[in-house]
Amino acid sequence: MFKIRSLVTALALAGSVSVASAWDALPTQADAPADNPTTAAKVELGQMLYHDPRLSSTGTVSCASCHNTMLGGEDNRPNSMGVNGQTGGRSAPTVWNSAFNKVQFWDGRAASLEEQAAGPVTNPIEMGMKSWDDVVARLQSIEGYQKAFEEAFGKGTISKENATKAIAAYERTLITPNSPYDKYVGGDKSALSAQQVRGMEKVAELGCTSCHSGPAFNGPGTFQKFPVIPNGYWEAQHHFGKDKGLAEVSKKQADEHLWKVPTLRNVALTAPYFHNGSVKTLDQAVTLMAKLQLGKDLSKDEVADIVAFLNSLTGEFPKQKMPVLPGTPGSTFN
Amino acid sequence: MFKIRSLVTALALAGSVSVASAWDALPTQADAPADNPTTAAKVELGQMLYHDPRLSSTGTVSCASCHNTMLGGEDNRPNSMGVNGQTGGRSAPTVWNSAFNKVQFWDGRAASLEEQAAGPVTNPIEMGMKSWDDVVARLQSIEGYQKAFEEAFGKGTISKENATKAIAAYERTLITPNSPYDKYVGGDKSALSAQQVRGMEKVAELGCTSCHSGPAFNGPGTFQKFPVIPNGYWEAQHHFGKDKGLAEVSKKQADEHLWKVPTLRNVALTAPYFHNGSVKTLDQAVTLMAKLQLGKDLSKDEVADIVAFLNSLTGEFPKQKMPVLPGTPGSTFN
Repeated sequence: MFKIRSLVTALALAGSVSVASAWDALPTQADAPADNPTTAAKVELGQMLYHDPRLSSTGTVSCASCHNTMLGGEDNRPNSMGVNGQTGGRSAPTVWNSAFNKVQFWDGRAASLEEQAAGPVTNPIEMGMKSWDDVVARLQSIEGYQKAFEEAFGKGTISKENATKAIAAYERTLITPNSPYDKYVGGDKSALSAQQVRGMEKVAELGCTSCHSGPAFNGPGTFQKFPVIPNGYWEAQHHFGKDKGLAEVSKKQADEHLWKVPTLRNVALTAPYFHNGSVKTLDQAVTLMAKLQLGKDLSKDEVADIVAFLNSLTGEFPKQKMPVLPGTPGSTFN
Repeated sequence: MFKIRSLVTALALAGSVSVASAWDALPTQADAPADNPTTAAKVELGQMLYHDPRLSSTGTVSCASCHNTMLGGEDNRPNSMGVNGQTGGRSAPTVWNSAFNKVQFWDGRAASLEEQAAGPVTNPIEMGMKSWDDVVARLQSIEGYQKAFEEAFGKGTISKENATKAIAAYERTLITPNSPYDKYVGGDKSALSAQQVRGMEKVAELGCTSCHSGPAFNGPGTFQKFPVIPNGYWEAQHHFGKDKGLAEVSKKQADEHLWKVPTLRNVALTAPYFHNGSVKTLDQAVTLMAKLQLGKDLSKDEVADIVAFLNSLTGEFPKQKMPVLPGTPGSTFN
């Protein structure tokens, strides 16, 4: 794994901030767990499975439907639409750079990409399969998948475990390096505009980076309460209190309104914002985050500077080939 | 346009059929209309538009959702699922080789790919946009599309006409040559098995090729009545009478139950079958076509031979890159 760490200096160079912050470029590769080393055959199979709507009950919803690899890694909807037009209460997180998340899902309930990949397939309002046994039976009925699993894992290896491993292996390749920000911290001082540099300074000065730091702007911690500062008006406006985050899973009062700190990479491409997708623009998202997490009212210019900086986090998307999915024998969907 | 025509000979060689039939390999390129010459920039833009779910009201349905270019050019469903989980009464025809259709849609109501491309976008149960003005406004709000249209058509050219031209230009590249059948008629006599050759002979002998001939097996005519031979039992079983085909558009009695003769290319990948997707397997489709169009009861072996031959019509899918769709500013979808 390549990791470029630039202990900048950027702010010090800019001259207006007294503390030096660590600004990290995005690695171009992601570490894989010991039991799922990344191989070309797994990535190829994973790309097929990820884009295959036949992993849903209706044959209409693939992982890519909500986490679109042709777009910013999600669907630009407040809430995604699963099988039969159903919608849930949360906004799809981007798949780009999800390899760098410490936990997965908005509430962080999955510890790995492998674990995450198993979830939506059998969620009744997402992909709607009755069970993974049904998914495995469907994959087994498709000759081309028998071959693709054989190449990735060996003969007769179609299983939930291997399907989710392949999807995770593919997702680990979905990295968007070389953003203007990455070039800037790599030494190309012309990569950011003066406004973007002002926004970068402001992000550190305000304290945004106390939660959104590191190469993916999603650390150093894992979870954070939202909102930190109670605000009846905005909470009512956006129904922020309705969904209790991690507590919905853990059932612990201490976990109420705890959320995974999301990456800011490619954030300009992933409107609308927040866990319930209720915030339509990046301007509004920045304004609300400052108010509800840091207790600060930003000026219009400050918001514009920060948004300009956030736009510099849009990276280069890897060139991908379109997968060719193996044919379906007979009719499976109603 | 390259066109390989092989006046075969194949049947004569096989020795058991007295009339020589014309068996044509699939061209590798399709002619474009004079007012829409195919260019690389148009094809690139067309591929983006074709795969962009933001051309639908909900942001969830693209052309590719129902006419999937990763699969057999359709969705393997009896009826496709449009926005908000809605379904219609017809089965999505394959987009592969649709450039060689004389007319488009099951009822042939569109004379060209350009005309066809305009339809589903504003169909309330397909992509659900209120109007093309709304589509154009949405595309204009996306900076990357301004640039892509400029490259394909010139500055400030986002319009319904150009969007549908680009989509059609892309579709003209979706050709699947070099099937085993194509290799066989090109002279490679080992490309088909003995059973496939028997099936090929049977197809000519029965008269299937009186409607399904030519390189795409969809001519020489354009429309055909279905069923030709009334059969109360099977018509009731599959509700064939419910949809009146061309007459639904023309309102003429003479057009009742007239349908575009569909291509047989890649037919093994496009279950379920017939205009309403009510026939689940290719075996059953062959059996019913012989009975209802030709008045013949086929033996199990004859069906198996014909199905083996139809499997030889699965071609090579062109290598495609995954399009990178330009980002959405703010939130558009509810």
